[in-house]
Amino acid sequence: MRTLEWNDGVLRLIDQQRLPLETVILECRTYQDVALAIREMRVRGAPAIGVTAAYGVVLGALEIKAQTREAFLRELRKIADYLQQTRPTAVNLSWALERMLSVAARSRGDNEEIKRALLVEAQRMAEEDELANRRLASFGAELIKDGANILTHCNTGSLATVHYGTALGVIRTAWGQGKRIHIFVDETRPLLQGARLTAWELTQDGIPMTLITDNMAGYFMRKGQINLAIVGADRIAANGDFANKIGTYTVAVLAKEHGVPFYTAAPTSTIDLSLASGEGIPIEERSPDEVVSIRGVRIAPEGVRAANPAFDVTPARYLAGIITENGIVRPPYEEGLRRVVELRQGHGLK
Amino acid sequence: MRTLEWNDGVLRLIDQQRLPLETVILECRTYQDVALAIREMRVRGAPAIGVTAAYGVVLGALEIKAQTREAFLRELRKIADYLQQTRPTAVNLSWALERMLSVAARSRGDNEEIKRALLVEAQRMAEEDELANRRLASFGAELIKDGANILTHCNTGSLATVHYGTALGVIRTAWGQGKRIHIFVDETRPLLQGARLTAWELTQDGIPMTLITDNMAGYFMRKGQINLAIVGADRIAANGDFANKIGTYTVAVLAKEHGVPFYTAAPTSTIDLSLASGEGIPIEERSPDEVVSIRGVRIAPEGVRAANPAFDVTPARYLAGIITENGIVRPPYEEGLRRVVELRQGHGLK
Repeated sequence: MRTLEWNDGVLRLIDQQRLPLETVILECRTYQDVALAIREMRVRGAPAIGVTAAYGVVLGALEIKAQTREAFLRELRKIADYLQQTRPTAVNLSWALERMLSVAARSRGDNEEIKRALLVEAQRMAEEDELANRRLASFGAELIKDGANILTHCNTGSLATVHYGTALGVIRTAWGQGKRIHIFVDETRPLLQGARLTAWELTQDGIPMTLITDNMAGYFMRKGQINLAIVGADRIAANGDFANKIGTYTVAVLAKEHGVPFYTAAPTSTIDLSLASGEGIPIEERSPDEVVSIRGVRIAPEGVRAANPAFDVTPARYLAGIITENGIVRPPYEEGLRRVVELRQGHGLK
Repeated sequence: MRTLEWNDGVLRLIDQQRLPLETVILECRTYQDVALAIREMRVRGAPAIGVTAAYGVVLGALEIKAQTREAFLRELRKIADYLQQTRPTAVNLSWALERMLSVAARSRGDNEEIKRALLVEAQRMAEEDELANRRLASFGAELIKDGANILTHCNTGSLATVHYGTALGVIRTAWGQGKRIHIFVDETRPLLQGARLTAWELTQDGIPMTLITDNMAGYFMRKGQINLAIVGADRIAANGDFANKIGTYTVAVLAKEHGVPFYTAAPTSTIDLSLASGEGIPIEERSPDEVVSIRGVRIAPEGVRAANPAFDVTPARYLAGIITENGIVRPPYEEGLRRVVELRQGHGLK
């Protein structure tokens, strides 16, 4: 089972809040189902969110009863807006929604034809996602030496994408090339995507790993046991600053302190050239419940105030490079990021 | 109820693995009970461990049936060795055990009199601990400005000591002086001493706080929301390098990156002048079970390998100062640490 699968009007998702202890399949039959799944992080990971939202638009479109083209497009815009409200940080979400709206606007047929075009577009985005991951993974794998010990944070694997993964895709490709690597997996509090999802994916692939709490990364870096750090991204600004799962910035600071090269890997759909720097990236604040309890078990006393920023922004100066499906971007990032985005558009992709 | 209380041949401890959801009192009637409580971290915190072990020696001594002084001292040494094996990193443990053995060796009376002298010594150590904490807290509080936002890691409060606390004692005193402060509490995985114990103590005292996951500290520092970081210590080497709860080193690196002054607060019993640097401090590796499950709930897939170093070493160069009951030691640390240890001995304390 893939992260998401479309079949005959139903979008099936692996419930990532239940993994790895239970494998539960969620069936989304309405765009509201899809929005809830994204909001509750039953599906998460910037690329996966984008494609899931695209299918959400398809589900919404199938319900539209409007007779005129104008009324149809108005309804569709409302559905996209509703899906847009689910999570603010990953730009892949608005990228996917805009792409879907643009397909509808460009379609010359009747409303039934627009619905078919939207489904085709969502399926194309799902296919492109895996393709982009495999391409960026093969660029990234060149950075990984035989024998490397690699730190990663959060989950950037098949579960964060339609298939294969970004940073974890790089690791997967390096392993597939026969490189003897070892992965240090940050557990990634509060929602433990590292302990639950990355550990699960690596175990299934037989890639050697050690699970650590987030606060152990510095210890292993100081011991010289980590040679490279690689993470994903939820939004990359024009200057290379990027938002990613909370704790990424700490990994970046530690990597700098220890001279460990630090990379982010993401498809170009994660690049937001409209933002000059990371200052403009909206950071989602989630419920404090995710901090004061863990998988339903209360850990802190009642009445305690907790903060829960779901992402942080890492300034570009901490990065050794940005790995995309159109090549590895090195400083200065402005020019390189523009180039890889243009290349995507040159390939006929929006 | 204090962290530990002696009453008529029974050492009562608050079970710190159960706090804050349950308040369970453990009754230790043998030195083996005491050793188990320390090993299982039902009592923890370097100063608390030291005094608890001293009472363990008392419980062991009360059981010794030896007729001769030599046989008695031989048995006592075995008991101390047994207690010493419980945890390797906090030097307060061996400091307390050596002090107890030295009292026995110096005592001129019969074996019953040695037993009485041991109990008196343990009680004196318990009293000294609170006194040292209150003294270091009043030195440390001078560093805290009105309106300060302070980051702390792990638990260094009443529960980590006999009473009052070290780093948390500093915070308590500053608050008592009417300074309007706000504490950012690292949850401190894997055993969550921050979320469970520090949050509990601060809530009881009404000191404003925000609980964060360990990986959020960098986010708040980058936003300029943290003015000072203060932690405890489990062992301070002659050059000022110190071991403390895993994650402390990461806080130190983040503090340096953001120009945030970073202090450790500890009684002089935590200073180990026999070690030239932190390289020699033994780091306890605990069971991976503490990482792969949280309060009995499994979080990682079966079969996953996890690391669990319980401490890390922070080089002295990250420190703005070391707060002790005999004053704040500033660089160069060798000289200052020797002076505060000599002052303790000058006060008639070993």
